[in-house]
Amino acid sequence: MAIERVCIIGAGTIGSLYAGHLADVAEVLVLTRRPEHADALNQHGLRVTGKSERHVRVTASTDPGELPEFDLGIVATKATDLEAIAQRLEGRFAGAAMMTIQNGLGAEEVMRRHGEWRLISAVTFMSGNRRGDAEVEYELDTATWMGPYAGTETPFAIVRDACELLLACGLQAEAMSDLRPAQWSKLIFNAAVNGVAALTELPHVAEFAAEARPADLGHLVHDLIAEGVRVADAAGVELHDDPWEMNRRAVTRGETNRSDYAHLPSMLEDVLARRPTEVDAISGALVREGERVGVPAPLNAAVWRLVRGKERSWAGAARTSPEEVRA
Amino acid sequence: MAIERVCIIGAGTIGSLYAGHLADVAEVLVLTRRPEHADALNQHGLRVTGKSERHVRVTASTDPGELPEFDLGIVATKATDLEAIAQRLEGRFAGAAMMTIQNGLGAEEVMRRHGEWRLISAVTFMSGNRRGDAEVEYELDTATWMGPYAGTETPFAIVRDACELLLACGLQAEAMSDLRPAQWSKLIFNAAVNGVAALTELPHVAEFAAEARPADLGHLVHDLIAEGVRVADAAGVELHDDPWEMNRRAVTRGETNRSDYAHLPSMLEDVLARRPTEVDAISGALVREGERVGVPAPLNAAVWRLVRGKERSWAGAARTSPEEVRA
Repeated sequence: MAIERVCIIGAGTIGSLYAGHLADVAEVLVLTRRPEHADALNQHGLRVTGKSERHVRVTASTDPGELPEFDLGIVATKATDLEAIAQRLEGRFAGAAMMTIQNGLGAEEVMRRHGEWRLISAVTFMSGNRRGDAEVEYELDTATWMGPYAGTETPFAIVRDACELLLACGLQAEAMSDLRPAQWSKLIFNAAVNGVAALTELPHVAEFAAEARPADLGHLVHDLIAEGVRVADAAGVELHDDPWEMNRRAVTRGETNRSDYAHLPSMLEDVLARRPTEVDAISGALVREGERVGVPAPLNAAVWRLVRGKERSWAGAARTSPEEVRA
Repeated sequence: MAIERVCIIGAGTIGSLYAGHLADVAEVLVLTRRPEHADALNQHGLRVTGKSERHVRVTASTDPGELPEFDLGIVATKATDLEAIAQRLEGRFAGAAMMTIQNGLGAEEVMRRHGEWRLISAVTFMSGNRRGDAEVEYELDTATWMGPYAGTETPFAIVRDACELLLACGLQAEAMSDLRPAQWSKLIFNAAVNGVAALTELPHVAEFAAEARPADLGHLVHDLIAEGVRVADAAGVELHDDPWEMNRRAVTRGETNRSDYAHLPSMLEDVLARRPTEVDAISGALVREGERVGVPAPLNAAVWRLVRGKERSWAGAARTSPEEVRA
């Protein structure tokens, strides 16, 4: 399959990074939620700064009915917005392959309930910062890993084509026959690191690997990860990476070669902005998988319930302000 | 022992409630941390509003050396301030009995390291709101329970005298030969309810007893309490109250007969004011007791580590404001 036209479905930070690069090698459509976002992209194009510099043309719309057929869809919404967008795609673009890159587990199943698209599972380690509706900064130029959605008939050739397209426009990518080892490594890492960041409001800093004193946070991160690894074992998934080593390397300069590494995990971004988080798809998914395979995950369940409780506190935030308490 | 002179050591909400009432039946001294607090009390006296109305004279100072001998000291600082005040009391007031009312465990041991006072263990369920340095509102007129510090030679007669003094001035009180069953009931309740409130920033509301759906917070509160009960069992403490029932009753109108019950646990007050919390003396104490008796308490350890992590996030709060993330 020659991929000539790509549709980026949801142009947050990650979707914008794909759109901005892929426009070098394909025609790029963008499906947005907000009309003013589509207008900005149609008028001004999309600018990428940081690790690469680009200014490209894209065709954006909020209405799937206005978009032409495409070969590859990259579904880049938050996990929390996936159900809504999948409903709007239902009955359309039957010829496209759809690649899901959401955090956590379960994105492919949501898509499957709404159409017969060939599905590509993916995880990405890229990061960036939106600078507005028509500009995104490329921060970590790390890989997207992809594979056929396990247990379906998505041919590996399509995955390889999508991978080559990403490589051709300068992104990092790798095609794998089975993505689950990588998907689960990231799931277990995210459940621990995003969950602890969301609850402590600490960015991903050295404390996440500290285990010298009993109250040190590294013990909890380690225990959350160990619980996730036990669930993966019971689910028959052999992990691609050791999530504890991923955590340790990230906060000890190994990944970034910067001593001031203090990445803001996406779930902490959501917490600080008081948006619903992806905790259901991350910690919640791990807990549900644990139940399915008969391995309890009480610490991940605790994180899940606490983050959900924290989300509910925002509704009642007017009850007591810090100023009233400090007074 | 006739108790004629009482010293309130630390006049936050609870200390002020004791001072305001006890002045009816004894001479009341107050040891404060801030000079302006002592000045306000000496100039204006102390006013109590709410469940009882009083305006009394007290003698306040920041300097233990300025205070005369007294019969009973009520040590009412936060657990986090206890070590500092115990150091300042060292070598003084040898004839006094000292009653500790801190949340959690370990206050008596801190005092013991600094003097030979006869020690009374106490827990209080009173609550109120400070309205300034010289005024406090009495909210819940519930009991103070007290007993001889277990394993020491504090005679029960002193405890009974202290209890009668509290009753004489209109407070609720009960003397017990062994306080540990009550102290541990409150410890386990506080570790769960204060910890979950501090992390979710929810006041103590109905969600704390909700167990209908897998993500409901009541599961976590229940599991935290079950863990604490197992530690108590192994430590040979038979609980005075079932902490889960304490939680359930509190949020289902049983205690307050109010449908809008939403008590702000003290650890959440500290979080909202960005003050150090008492989590070391509460969740931390439970974890340490668990280790001592060979019963792990991983969920309480998680709460301990997360709250400690959250405290550290305040130092770096300038790194990213919610406004920057929302933008």
